[in-house]
Amino acid sequence: MEDKAQIQEAIKSQGEVVRKLKSEKASKEQIDEEVAKLLELKAQLGDDGKTQFVLKTPKGTRDYNPKQMAIREKVFNTIIRCFKRHGAETIDTPVFELKETLTGKYGEDSKLIYDLKDQGGELLSLRYDLTVPFARYLAMNKITNIKRYHIAKVYRRDNPAMTRGRYREFYQCDFDIAGQYDAMIPDAECLKIVHEILNELDLGDFRIKVNDRRILDGMFAVCGVPDDKFRTICSTVDKLDKMSWEDVKKEMVNEKGLSEEAADQIGEYVSMQGGMDLAERLLQDHKMSQSKQACAGLSDIKLLFKYLQLFHVTDKVVFDLSLARGLDYYTGVIYEAVLTQASAVSAANEAQNGANAEESVSVGSVAGGGRYDGLVGMFDPKGRRVPCVGVSIGIERIFSIMEQKAEASPEKVRTTEVQIMVASAQKNLLEERLQLISELWNAGIKVGVWQGGVRTDQGGDTVNNPTLRVWVPCVSTRGSSVAALSGL
Amino acid sequence: MEDKAQIQEAIKSQGEVVRKLKSEKASKEQIDEEVAKLLELKAQLGDDGKTQFVLKTPKGTRDYNPKQMAIREKVFNTIIRCFKRHGAETIDTPVFELKETLTGKYGEDSKLIYDLKDQGGELLSLRYDLTVPFARYLAMNKITNIKRYHIAKVYRRDNPAMTRGRYREFYQCDFDIAGQYDAMIPDAECLKIVHEILNELDLGDFRIKVNDRRILDGMFAVCGVPDDKFRTICSTVDKLDKMSWEDVKKEMVNEKGLSEEAADQIGEYVSMQGGMDLAERLLQDHKMSQSKQACAGLSDIKLLFKYLQLFHVTDKVVFDLSLARGLDYYTGVIYEAVLTQASAVSAANEAQNGANAEESVSVGSVAGGGRYDGLVGMFDPKGRRVPCVGVSIGIERIFSIMEQKAEASPEKVRTTEVQIMVASAQKNLLEERLQLISELWNAGIKVGVWQGGVRTDQGGDTVNNPTLRVWVPCVSTRGSSVAALSGL
Repeated sequence: MEDKAQIQEAIKSQGEVVRKLKSEKASKEQIDEEVAKLLELKAQLGDDGKTQFVLKTPKGTRDYNPKQMAIREKVFNTIIRCFKRHGAETIDTPVFELKETLTGKYGEDSKLIYDLKDQGGELLSLRYDLTVPFARYLAMNKITNIKRYHIAKVYRRDNPAMTRGRYREFYQCDFDIAGQYDAMIPDAECLKIVHEILNELDLGDFRIKVNDRRILDGMFAVCGVPDDKFRTICSTVDKLDKMSWEDVKKEMVNEKGLSEEAADQIGEYVSMQGGMDLAERLLQDHKMSQSKQACAGLSDIKLLFKYLQLFHVTDKVVFDLSLARGLDYYTGVIYEAVLTQASAVSAANEAQNGANAEESVSVGSVAGGGRYDGLVGMFDPKGRRVPCVGVSIGIERIFSIMEQKAEASPEKVRTTEVQIMVASAQKNLLEERLQLISELWNAGIKVGVWQGGVRTDQGGDTVNNPTLRVWVPCVSTRGSSVAALSGL
Repeated sequence: MEDKAQIQEAIKSQGEVVRKLKSEKASKEQIDEEVAKLLELKAQLGDDGKTQFVLKTPKGTRDYNPKQMAIREKVFNTIIRCFKRHGAETIDTPVFELKETLTGKYGEDSKLIYDLKDQGGELLSLRYDLTVPFARYLAMNKITNIKRYHIAKVYRRDNPAMTRGRYREFYQCDFDIAGQYDAMIPDAECLKIVHEILNELDLGDFRIKVNDRRILDGMFAVCGVPDDKFRTICSTVDKLDKMSWEDVKKEMVNEKGLSEEAADQIGEYVSMQGGMDLAERLLQDHKMSQSKQACAGLSDIKLLFKYLQLFHVTDKVVFDLSLARGLDYYTGVIYEAVLTQASAVSAANEAQNGANAEESVSVGSVAGGGRYDGLVGMFDPKGRRVPCVGVSIGIERIFSIMEQKAEASPEKVRTTEVQIMVASAQKNLLEERLQLISELWNAGIKVGVWQGGVRTDQGGDTVNNPTLRVWVPCVSTRGSSVAALSGL
């Protein structure tokens, strides 16, 4: 036992050595060397580790209990109904991809990818989103035109913040349109979808920010950002929703080596918000109008707003030059939806805790997406491009809100759909009960059972449910027809 | 380039070295050493491997296209409807568990578990089934009574046979009843569920084999198998559905060191099949009746058949002493459903290929399960037991059959639910079209669009669908009300 404690102590301190080296950005060789020592120590523990057994789910993950599943099902149904209304088909892809399929698609976020252990055979990684597998699917099957949705779990070795709905395993609900269309028509449809879903889920007021990668790139160019710094400066701009402009500027100048002047010019632009009018104004802007790219983006933003007017959704959409989005693969329009108030939740929280719940409701972005015209081409052996635009609903944050709402509501969440309870006071009449239940099942009726005091229906709401009938069979029910009940 | 080719050649031959050592069951040290060399070679390839990029899904996995998804949805709905009819709730668990959660639960199959790479933090493995995570969930949440279903993907590094529906990533549909009940009542319900589902899915005739771990253990005891050989001999008996008795006997005697006499006695028993009568006969059997365990199992089989008679499902159930099932955690009744004819499929195949399709339809087991009263206790810090019984529907094999049926059927599989197509002959009337579509969406109608010759509905069946209407907007449709359509 003492040996083991010593090894565990050694593991702990070796872990700290590794963490320190990583935070100091030490050389890869140096880190690898220390990691190897750590692994060796862990291996020494071997099977003895069993006594240290902890009953938990992995860090950043959770189980869903029946109540949470009932809420999840409701949210999914709303979303799927919307996707189907828009004529989408659905596909599914494996939870892991060849490691190389994911390589070079996520920029700085790549370090968050989960790899599988090399157990012989292919090197695999868990999917990081549903967009890259979708692009791989299109290229592999030579599909150039599809409107599809995909609802599945994705994996990110991020710092979890589970109370705010940030997990390492989480659902994404993606809707994408691939194919050649008139400019901005599928893009407008994606925004319409976000509008429909957030409206239907009734989560309180929201705002959809819109921008365009070409406008960002054009802006960087006219502000004097060197070409090779576009991506990294873009990542920094992306932090504006979490950091103040001062801190963002500091990162640009001190860490990324941008000139103070360029940073200040960027600062002017990224403070701008508006609608079609802003796009028109920027098309006249003496600096911005020098960039062809920016002008192309601005004209598309104008067109987009025209279609959004036809869809009657401009009330929620704002053209916001600070929106950047971290992922590498976007090429055109980008967007992100945020809840601007969380009235339902804060009211619920206040009712429950009597506290001002403002802090607890900063759930952040609940949907995001954009145009990625180059991604499919990265997979095609001949580089054939398939223009794509899509949106991903960040469902975990929505679950968090819905769960809080359900907690605060006096209404109980039903976790079964039981229509009839079959019961008997004691353990007698067992055969009659079983026969009756079997008849009910065969008639398609959802049955719960009380068996000698044990209720097999755990819905927790059967007693107070007015639509639920309780049947206590007696000898006379033998042979009774349940056909009359099948209308239930 | 030549360097790389050399390295790849070296990887290939080193891979063979490792495989050879494994097949020869060489010492762990020796294998580890050669694996280390292999990993080093792979590391040398590094990023250069990119040029070797192959567009595929990982070995043993597949994408589901919209047609397959439509079939999958239909099958899931049938199964979920049945589970709900039986009053079940649903839960979900993460796709990976702490490695130690899975350790020691699967016997010889443990080698098929996918591990995640140690990237710092916890050691994780992909779930191998849904039963062990369920037991972990019960122990963690101190739940002693629940009827739940869980439909999710599980992962096994097995030899894939994809045409026969055997994948490395595949769905399981599990239904389990945890809690203290009168003997054999939940067990009978599980068999009733298998009967209902296989009937409703209409896959052709099937047979549900039933046995009991206690009968097997008792049988091994009275046949003279040493206690410490029960599990390994049980694994060998489990192969009787794939191997002849002669080969099974050979493995018992030559590989596992059992006496020829003991093997022959086992051979006599495992050839027995029957119903309640066989259980009664074995209770009188002079050898079998010496085992208390076997008698307990046989009495339960009798009781089980009594309940199955009340449920009117005995026509498909057979008590079969050769049924063993590989997993370690079973403690009582075990069962497995097999398709005994694949009439629908072979007819379909014959129609398509004009060939005798007998070989292609050996889909094997389509459902299996049993009682595992000890598993939850393995997770409980105080070892508290929660009796459990459950069944898992092997859905991939069912998909394979349904897909073949759909292929052979003249009916097209619908992949969207589009009710109305909006079209225009040229690219004109765009604004009118968008406004009309938006109105239809808002009225809850599922819309497909023809845009300048591009159809965004890929269902492939819209043209011939009699319920589908095509709207070509003209100026007069402006402002038309779609309320009249919402009854669609």
